[in-house]
Amino acid sequence: MSVRREARAYAPASVGNIGVGFDLLGHTIAGPRDTATVRRIAEPTVRIRSIGGDVAGADRLPLAAAENTAGQALISLREKLRLGYGFELELEKGIALGSGLGGSAASCVAAVVAANALLDAPLSRAALYPFALDGESVSSGSRHGDNVAPMLFGGVVMATATRVIELQAPEWLHCVVVHPDQVLETRRARAVLAEPYPLGLVVEQSAHLALFLTGLQRGDADLIREGLQDLLVEPRRAPLIPGFAAVKSAALDSGALGASISGGGPSVFAWFRSAREADAAAAPMRAAFADAGFGSRVYVSPVAGPRAEVIGDDV
Amino acid sequence: MSVRREARAYAPASVGNIGVGFDLLGHTIAGPRDTATVRRIAEPTVRIRSIGGDVAGADRLPLAAAENTAGQALISLREKLRLGYGFELELEKGIALGSGLGGSAASCVAAVVAANALLDAPLSRAALYPFALDGESVSSGSRHGDNVAPMLFGGVVMATATRVIELQAPEWLHCVVVHPDQVLETRRARAVLAEPYPLGLVVEQSAHLALFLTGLQRGDADLIREGLQDLLVEPRRAPLIPGFAAVKSAALDSGALGASISGGGPSVFAWFRSAREADAAAAPMRAAFADAGFGSRVYVSPVAGPRAEVIGDDV
Repeated sequence: MSVRREARAYAPASVGNIGVGFDLLGHTIAGPRDTATVRRIAEPTVRIRSIGGDVAGADRLPLAAAENTAGQALISLREKLRLGYGFELELEKGIALGSGLGGSAASCVAAVVAANALLDAPLSRAALYPFALDGESVSSGSRHGDNVAPMLFGGVVMATATRVIELQAPEWLHCVVVHPDQVLETRRARAVLAEPYPLGLVVEQSAHLALFLTGLQRGDADLIREGLQDLLVEPRRAPLIPGFAAVKSAALDSGALGASISGGGPSVFAWFRSAREADAAAAPMRAAFADAGFGSRVYVSPVAGPRAEVIGDDV
Repeated sequence: MSVRREARAYAPASVGNIGVGFDLLGHTIAGPRDTATVRRIAEPTVRIRSIGGDVAGADRLPLAAAENTAGQALISLREKLRLGYGFELELEKGIALGSGLGGSAASCVAAVVAANALLDAPLSRAALYPFALDGESVSSGSRHGDNVAPMLFGGVVMATATRVIELQAPEWLHCVVVHPDQVLETRRARAVLAEPYPLGLVVEQSAHLALFLTGLQRGDADLIREGLQDLLVEPRRAPLIPGFAAVKSAALDSGALGASISGGGPSVFAWFRSAREADAAAAPMRAAFADAGFGSRVYVSPVAGPRAEVIGDDV
């Protein structure tokens, strides 16, 4: 059996936090994706050959491997597995930078999944999780897996620093994700969260999380609707996203079970009971951002979105 | 069909909060219980004839119906159902006052369940919940159902102000509850919680809650163990309970999945993977309180404990 020398993989975008599970929950969406091409090279190093793609700012991403989420993930993989060889990496960005759709996580997961296909003994997705976290922490400064974990496993995922738990999402659940042409710095989005939270609010939010998880597990739209309300983070971040309130209203007026901020924003997501409802809500949600003066891209996807995959394996 | 004139019902004690679900989760235990005897009377009023039982302080409980949790629950029942008749109530306390085992809730639930048996058209348990909450709020000053809801439904229950969700608890789960001869005022136990909580702690606690709920639902002891850790309330309340740390250590040393404070304390509960483990842990947990200078009573019960029932219905 000859060892494979090159592999390509993609990782989908994701909705981090899902409103009610800050740094804990996430799900992928079909559509936007990052692609990584990884080659095994003789030199015991990781180098990034190029970063391309038609998203703004892709050319400003660091080519130094240790400063790049995908590069760092492969460095971590090489070191911890004590590989005698290295990797050369090409990234193709399809997820807009700073969108709140997990772009840096997707590059990292795509690279890890592609590199895994080049190992003499490829690892399970669960075994790849720590390497993806190592990479993601370059961008976020902390180890939270609410983006990389759903990308590795697909669908809705609960991720702690040590554990990934795949949650069953009913197939009728669909989402709309709207990404406006705004820039919201992750650092600023985090800063507004620093002030501590009173117990009453924490208890109410815990109840929402519990209702949400139970609703998901039972496929009960009413429970999901009651649970999918973020009282902690959204009230503080929403003022940083011009048009947010109108977009959320448009979603709820279109029958959304709930709507909130995707990841660190400025993208907004909403969940619906069917693909038809989600399709119908996309236009009014875009229009609300347009009224606030912002163009946007919109995606409709099953909530149980795809996972990262090697490309061309089945050819 | 003749209308029944008198009914007796009991309600079991409960472990409120279950550590990780403050004001949200609770479960009943077999053993200690309050009993209510309710009579239909012609006068359109609610009166408490007597409060007895062999627990300290039972004779100091208010006989004025509106000041008593059980009395207020029946007042609420009468008024909202517009009953033309009244109720006379006798309470027999079996759950120690101020123990953190839901004593005031149990009186209230026992009274509601007994009175319900006297209605021309008895209500469902779900329909009784608001009346039990009305009663419970006399004692706690707020409407939280983490004690009354498990007593009405049995087992482990998630309770919000408007909703009760019964959670499946694996039958192998058993608990030890130790009630020391200490008094911890509910008011004082609440006061230490006032200072707000940083986001990092809230996020970690949310992860614990999510792991706990998923573990319960999947019957996965490892997930329950990871989840059953209270970072918010226990660190602040534990110093008010002399001996707590030693009792918790004794539980964990005996293989407990987790241990924390029952309700507002001072009782301590621990969960185990089997009745045998729970039985074996009871003595060391008691001994730890004894070392701190406190006698105690100890209960071992399935976590999926009983619900309140009318007594003698099946005779």
